[in-house]
Amino acid sequence: MCGIVGYIGESQAAPILLDGLSKLEYRGYDSAGIAIYDGENIQVQKAVGRLKALSELTHDGATMPGISGIGHTRWATHGAPSNQNAHPHYNQSETIAVVHNGIIENYLKLRKRLEKKGYQFQSDTDTEVVAHLLDYYYKGDPIEAITKIMHRVEGSYALGIIFKEHPEHVYAVRKDSPLIVGHGKDGNLIASDVPAVLKYTRNVYFIQNEEIAVLTKDAIAFYNVDGEDIQKESTAIDWDINAAEKGGYEHFMLKEMYEQPQTVRDTLNPRIKDGTIVIEELGMSEEEIRGIRKIHIVACGSAYHVGVTGKYVFEGMARIPVEVDLASEFRYRNPILSHDELVIVISQSGETADSLAALREAKDKGVKTLGIVNVVGSSIAREADKVMYTWAGPEIAVATTKAYSAQLIAQYLLAVKFAQVRDVITEGEVAAFLKDLQKLPEQIEMLLSNKEKIQHFANRYIAAKDVFFVGRGIDYAISLEGSLKLKEISYIHSEAYAAGELKHGTISLIEEGTLVAAVVTQEDLYKKTISNIVELSSRGAFVLAVTNTGNREIEKAADYVIYIPQTNKYFTNSLAIIPLQLFSYYVSVGKGCDVDKPRNLAKSVTVE
Amino acid sequence: MCGIVGYIGESQAAPILLDGLSKLEYRGYDSAGIAIYDGENIQVQKAVGRLKALSELTHDGATMPGISGIGHTRWATHGAPSNQNAHPHYNQSETIAVVHNGIIENYLKLRKRLEKKGYQFQSDTDTEVVAHLLDYYYKGDPIEAITKIMHRVEGSYALGIIFKEHPEHVYAVRKDSPLIVGHGKDGNLIASDVPAVLKYTRNVYFIQNEEIAVLTKDAIAFYNVDGEDIQKESTAIDWDINAAEKGGYEHFMLKEMYEQPQTVRDTLNPRIKDGTIVIEELGMSEEEIRGIRKIHIVACGSAYHVGVTGKYVFEGMARIPVEVDLASEFRYRNPILSHDELVIVISQSGETADSLAALREAKDKGVKTLGIVNVVGSSIAREADKVMYTWAGPEIAVATTKAYSAQLIAQYLLAVKFAQVRDVITEGEVAAFLKDLQKLPEQIEMLLSNKEKIQHFANRYIAAKDVFFVGRGIDYAISLEGSLKLKEISYIHSEAYAAGELKHGTISLIEEGTLVAAVVTQEDLYKKTISNIVELSSRGAFVLAVTNTGNREIEKAADYVIYIPQTNKYFTNSLAIIPLQLFSYYVSVGKGCDVDKPRNLAKSVTVE
Repeated sequence: MCGIVGYIGESQAAPILLDGLSKLEYRGYDSAGIAIYDGENIQVQKAVGRLKALSELTHDGATMPGISGIGHTRWATHGAPSNQNAHPHYNQSETIAVVHNGIIENYLKLRKRLEKKGYQFQSDTDTEVVAHLLDYYYKGDPIEAITKIMHRVEGSYALGIIFKEHPEHVYAVRKDSPLIVGHGKDGNLIASDVPAVLKYTRNVYFIQNEEIAVLTKDAIAFYNVDGEDIQKESTAIDWDINAAEKGGYEHFMLKEMYEQPQTVRDTLNPRIKDGTIVIEELGMSEEEIRGIRKIHIVACGSAYHVGVTGKYVFEGMARIPVEVDLASEFRYRNPILSHDELVIVISQSGETADSLAALREAKDKGVKTLGIVNVVGSSIAREADKVMYTWAGPEIAVATTKAYSAQLIAQYLLAVKFAQVRDVITEGEVAAFLKDLQKLPEQIEMLLSNKEKIQHFANRYIAAKDVFFVGRGIDYAISLEGSLKLKEISYIHSEAYAAGELKHGTISLIEEGTLVAAVVTQEDLYKKTISNIVELSSRGAFVLAVTNTGNREIEKAADYVIYIPQTNKYFTNSLAIIPLQLFSYYVSVGKGCDVDKPRNLAKSVTVE
Repeated sequence: MCGIVGYIGESQAAPILLDGLSKLEYRGYDSAGIAIYDGENIQVQKAVGRLKALSELTHDGATMPGISGIGHTRWATHGAPSNQNAHPHYNQSETIAVVHNGIIENYLKLRKRLEKKGYQFQSDTDTEVVAHLLDYYYKGDPIEAITKIMHRVEGSYALGIIFKEHPEHVYAVRKDSPLIVGHGKDGNLIASDVPAVLKYTRNVYFIQNEEIAVLTKDAIAFYNVDGEDIQKESTAIDWDINAAEKGGYEHFMLKEMYEQPQTVRDTLNPRIKDGTIVIEELGMSEEEIRGIRKIHIVACGSAYHVGVTGKYVFEGMARIPVEVDLASEFRYRNPILSHDELVIVISQSGETADSLAALREAKDKGVKTLGIVNVVGSSIAREADKVMYTWAGPEIAVATTKAYSAQLIAQYLLAVKFAQVRDVITEGEVAAFLKDLQKLPEQIEMLLSNKEKIQHFANRYIAAKDVFFVGRGIDYAISLEGSLKLKEISYIHSEAYAAGELKHGTISLIEEGTLVAAVVTQEDLYKKTISNIVELSSRGAFVLAVTNTGNREIEKAADYVIYIPQTNKYFTNSLAIIPLQLFSYYVSVGKGCDVDKPRNLAKSVTVE
């Protein structure tokens, strides 16, 4: 996730671009950069870190005169946060500049081909291939070049482009990454999100997939992938700026929940190539993978719940023994580790203090480490021997949703890969796993679209004092996360329990009307969990069940049922968590809690 | 734990003995038996199972005429529940009959010596050595024989004895096992506990350690271990029968908490011989112990918390990797097991359905299994490859206290033994561990004697809705058990959390005045947990700390501190749990809950 902007009009471009980027910093803040046509050439300035650094460098844009340009604020995915990797990127002759939000999945293949043709790359980014590819196809007509690269590039993108030879135009195109165009009085703008343009106009066009926009200072034209003219209607934005930052969503949490299909796609798709899993940044040889005798997964909070799921997935799929630890416990318990084991540390920020300390503890003991991390260039990403990125983009809400979903996907990919390399599963099974994985984004979308039903249900439980989440196996892992979501944003004391363990004590807390959310996605455990549900019901519990489509049996036992689409048993967490996220969200909203910033909590826990 | 009775007087003895035993069935019900002097010989009848079987066999005592005799209801320790092992036990010529409650720690040595002298044993019990030893020393004077065996026998005992040659007397003696004498109008009685005699008299003598009582039908005499006369005062019992069954305690739970020092002694002392650990029934060779590559501990409820402690103890002390599992999860997750691993199943009843199924799952996979079990002859005891008994006696209260304490001790002993055999610790360390273990009973007594302070504190929290227990490492394991105790009997929603993990979500539940019990017994983690306490306090929590004597630092951070005596860091659970048990108990009493039988719960969970 990154943010892009572009402007052409009567005013100076640089200050407008900087102002627009400031509204998009929530999309990334690893580095920022702008490209301005100064009347002769395209000038580029970049700075690592928050936008402030670029503003200072350019004296708030004053040092970059010109009335057209593009800008970018970066969330590192391919390539560490550095000046070199900051956008905009040039072609070699510096006649074309590009800013990009998204992931070019086939960039390595494209890069190799371009290098063979003599193109020299300056950065490690996927974006730079776009600049060179445009150069390669550009024969005088920008639209022609753009439509050609659209056929060559796989993945997601929103691009802002300027050509030195066409200084009266700013070009933009998108696929699976957001892009809007603002039609202002004294100029036109492009941006990743509405807030970036609101200061200049409330008249906005939403660009659809594979549509091209061409801006001049007083007009906007649209084209399809074949270069044909298309007509678009503008929308008058009546949100206030504050709401607009959340993309029209009431809270960042809701917005981020809705970004999950894309997050899952971004983390998944670039790693599936010709039916096999390629995790470029990982750099583990097949021999290394075959040599792993045991995996330790170490994490905190929701990432720990990803790890609990991971135990079932790695053990079940790849038959590698797994031990899951809270980082704060692992680091101080003098864990028994040996050199043929792998320690996986999962962290969104890559800066979680306990997880980082656990990583160092493992490294001190001479064990191989692997970080599953969202923030490129973060401490855990840098210090772990191996790294695998989740491509969730910045997460603003304290209660994680999309980063959690991305971590699950990363872990599934690793598990399938490990199982495949170790010959524990057949090629047919690999294909089936990948097929199910690729269905997840659409299935998540479908679940999100059901939000009214869950909102309605959640409203009944706004006054609840205690809620229990129960499940067996992976369903227990899902319960842990469902419970944490609820407690952290609604302040309701919820607790997750292994369904079979309740009767050893906790069932004494069940009273008439106590809400119990039962997660029942593991077909071989249906009967066992249903009998636990019956026990709970007979003590007065109101049971909400989250189960697979087709498990009609459960309707006899549970009071309210939410169905999730069919997927492989190892992947159900990715679907079952969606209604539980929505439930927590609507309970919190209903209670009037501060959803995005719950009391006592910080987003990234960089203290012990 | 067993129950003994004796009678001599004007009435028929057998019906009185059966009635007395019926009041002692809470002390055991594996088998029962009585011995009656019929005017010529000592007749013995025994039946396996509940007392009812013996009543039926003897037509409520009618088939056993005679006015003096002794009786026993058994809780198997040495030797499975069987007719052969049921008490009373005879000498070879059937002229001396003995009933026994307690454990003869040096019985094997004594048995070997007696066998060398030609004595033939009929049972596997420790008790039978007493019968033969009495025979060996008896030269016409029962008191002389009894005082002689008192010098030879190590361990705990309350004995009821009749000699064919002295039919006008019933003899009794005790050390570390309870014994009372009732002085009735038409006869005198002995019993393990007051309720057994209340129907006949309220006039009772409490026998002290190493005192001998000699009953005739109308008189009672007392002697010390040197055979000298001593004078004793009788006590008039004003309890009702119901209260008397609880030994004067208001609830079985409180009674059982107070039995913990003895339970710990019983589980510990017989296993420590000449400075080494001998667990007779275990039958594991040193080679087997050295060959263990990994331990899985599988259990439910409080026994699972013993297992969580066990992970720290086995890993820390013996450096064997340990994985702890809830039985209900283990059995269904297709665990990865290999033949050089050991699965330890912990269960008080030995009949816990999930634990039994987990044991069978492990055996099916060809892994060696070891049961830590309280009930001799139970399913888990029979089916596990190896067994180690906890000698806690029957536990009546649903919320376990003494069985939990005994399980901890059993596990410590195993860990020290494993560490010693595997040469991971020095002989000096072994000696230090054993010394600390042997101090535990007195230290527990000391903590129990502080109950008023905790009662006072508990009364403040009767209206609490949510309570949190936090700790790191072993302190986390203690927190789990402290939390479970509270929730199961007081219906307060309490939850245990690893102290370092709170800030990843759960801390949002902390409000002004929320009670947090922090367990802080691990010296190397003092500072870390104290900083978590400070975080909690700053959010308004009221923090009760349970910590080691000497940790004065904590008084700056916590609001209320309970100190436990110094012990080895691996053994602190045995001490820190005592105030937490008392706290839960008094909160439950204060709320007027049914302490011994909390709603929705069963003592032994024999369903999934």
